[in-house]
Amino acid sequence: MRHSPVAVLAVASLALVGAGPPPVDAGKPLTPNDIVAAAAPAEWTRISPEDLLVMDLPPDTKGRARRVVIQLMPAPFSQGWIGNIRKLVAARWFDGIAVVRAQDNYVVQWGDPDGEDPNKAKPLPKGLRVVPESEYVAANAKVSDMPFEVPLAGHAARPGNAGKPRVAVRSLDRSLPRDSYASFTGHSTSGWPVAFDSAGIWPVHCYGMVGVGRGLSPDTGTGAELYVVIGQAPRQLDRNIALVGRVIEGIEDLSTMPRGTGPLGFYETAAERTPILSVRMGSGVAGLPAYEYLSTESASFAAYVDKRANRKDDFYIQPAGGVDVCNVPVPVRRVGAVTRPVGK
Amino acid sequence: MRHSPVAVLAVASLALVGAGPPPVDAGKPLTPNDIVAAAAPAEWTRISPEDLLVMDLPPDTKGRARRVVIQLMPAPFSQGWIGNIRKLVAARWFDGIAVVRAQDNYVVQWGDPDGEDPNKAKPLPKGLRVVPESEYVAANAKVSDMPFEVPLAGHAARPGNAGKPRVAVRSLDRSLPRDSYASFTGHSTSGWPVAFDSAGIWPVHCYGMVGVGRGLSPDTGTGAELYVVIGQAPRQLDRNIALVGRVIEGIEDLSTMPRGTGPLGFYETAAERTPILSVRMGSGVAGLPAYEYLSTESASFAAYVDKRANRKDDFYIQPAGGVDVCNVPVPVRRVGAVTRPVGK
Repeated sequence: MRHSPVAVLAVASLALVGAGPPPVDAGKPLTPNDIVAAAAPAEWTRISPEDLLVMDLPPDTKGRARRVVIQLMPAPFSQGWIGNIRKLVAARWFDGIAVVRAQDNYVVQWGDPDGEDPNKAKPLPKGLRVVPESEYVAANAKVSDMPFEVPLAGHAARPGNAGKPRVAVRSLDRSLPRDSYASFTGHSTSGWPVAFDSAGIWPVHCYGMVGVGRGLSPDTGTGAELYVVIGQAPRQLDRNIALVGRVIEGIEDLSTMPRGTGPLGFYETAAERTPILSVRMGSGVAGLPAYEYLSTESASFAAYVDKRANRKDDFYIQPAGGVDVCNVPVPVRRVGAVTRPVGK
Repeated sequence: MRHSPVAVLAVASLALVGAGPPPVDAGKPLTPNDIVAAAAPAEWTRISPEDLLVMDLPPDTKGRARRVVIQLMPAPFSQGWIGNIRKLVAARWFDGIAVVRAQDNYVVQWGDPDGEDPNKAKPLPKGLRVVPESEYVAANAKVSDMPFEVPLAGHAARPGNAGKPRVAVRSLDRSLPRDSYASFTGHSTSGWPVAFDSAGIWPVHCYGMVGVGRGLSPDTGTGAELYVVIGQAPRQLDRNIALVGRVIEGIEDLSTMPRGTGPLGFYETAAERTPILSVRMGSGVAGLPAYEYLSTESASFAAYVDKRANRKDDFYIQPAGGVDVCNVPVPVRRVGAVTRPVGK
């Protein structure tokens, strides 16, 4: 009856993403991890350091350095807010602000703790755009212009969609999408989890995604206040708030922060807040490792999605026959080193 | 351009569940929180202390007491494992074991750190059942015997289902379920998130759900090693591993634990593990508050599900038109006091 704790749930989760191939055992069914580990070098895409935010926090209570690395999204998504964030970083505006909120199963958020008080608020740099709500959805990016990796064979039949699905999943129902929040979900060819319908394409709120805090509509936020998802995907926020990127390294430094005891997880005292030492573009950080993600156009990514939807191996006895877009984290690794992907 | 940090994402998340009605503003659309706060006393169901596990951990680094309260599931779900857990608690077997694993966006797990070593492993009490894999699904519980709250109007048309859906949601497609992992999802009348198809009914892996660690198939675990979900719902584990309950209070004490640096988030040294002081049934804990959950058969729960699927208020501009079963946490509160529900 006794069993190894190390074996427990072992096959269920994504292990470290290494550069080398997995140990070969011809008799063993592959896991998603095996597929990622065996991906060819050409299937990995380098992330430009110009698209990385590097956020340094003070060392933790044990003296360990804390650094969070965020990848910003490419066009056609949220470029108005992302332009603002680049200006804020250039002005070093984020340096000295703080993590102001940690709400369990929801978000960790950083911004100006004095933002509410006009006399004390940190002035924003000039030239920030006021981005309209219409930019929550990339309405001009037609699905036919942008083939998607979707976990549904039925997707190919969509009128106006010239792209063929590269991933066939044994869905319980192949003819229709199986997502509560959108007609279709998948991954953009640029590597991002998205949803789409006839109105356009939009990024989705998965674990580790970074969004722009805002006030009540019609405010859309500037980008000076950001949050990261640390729980069940709050997909109801899709199309209601801007997403600008995802954490690719160091999310543990945010997700383990003590939860705030005020309403919505805001910290009630200054002493509880974690200060942000600095936020820099990756291109300005000496010694930053190079990062790459597994191309969502690659054959290995297609096989990885399929295996995530159909686990059947020494651990799994019942394949799900489907997978949620937020349970398909895009693998990311340091080049020439071992790191963790976002998620499991 | 500047806005209140307190307002940011304010309407998006479930606030404290208080006993009183919300402030009334006739012109304002209700939020899910408003609906829960206004539920009638008779809509709340008391949780028997016989169905609660109370797990005490040592105080945190700031001297704050840490207590995790877990509600066990009722029949027809997982009763073989739950019977074992009751025996383990009666034998005080959990006292002195430890949290051995914390993997980001996945699980926190506790068990015998020496379980791997036959010479050092803590002996299990006699009389534990070896539960077969077939019990992952309650195959004998027909849907027709058990009406469900489902967020889909199409559910009523299911052959053999005598129950009428109490919750109508403006789904993007009313005729079919919108879940990647099961034909149908909803909440059992006993208050639990479930999925079902022609094979039977099974509980699902949402945030805060507690499951039974195990080795490779055909092992199903005894219940001596337990985990709690602390990230995106790992629904691929449904029907592959036993779920036995959910955390109703104190999940923050687990979800914020430092992540283990070993494979799968296991702690690499004994010093990193958090010891478990004791686990007792709620009926044996002096001074334990009474807890109750919002009945999933109540009108307020139906309205709450509907509102979760269709947010449109001062914050939300685009209702989703649907909701994932794991984004409908069943509200739980202390009787006569204010507490937090599981989730948001």
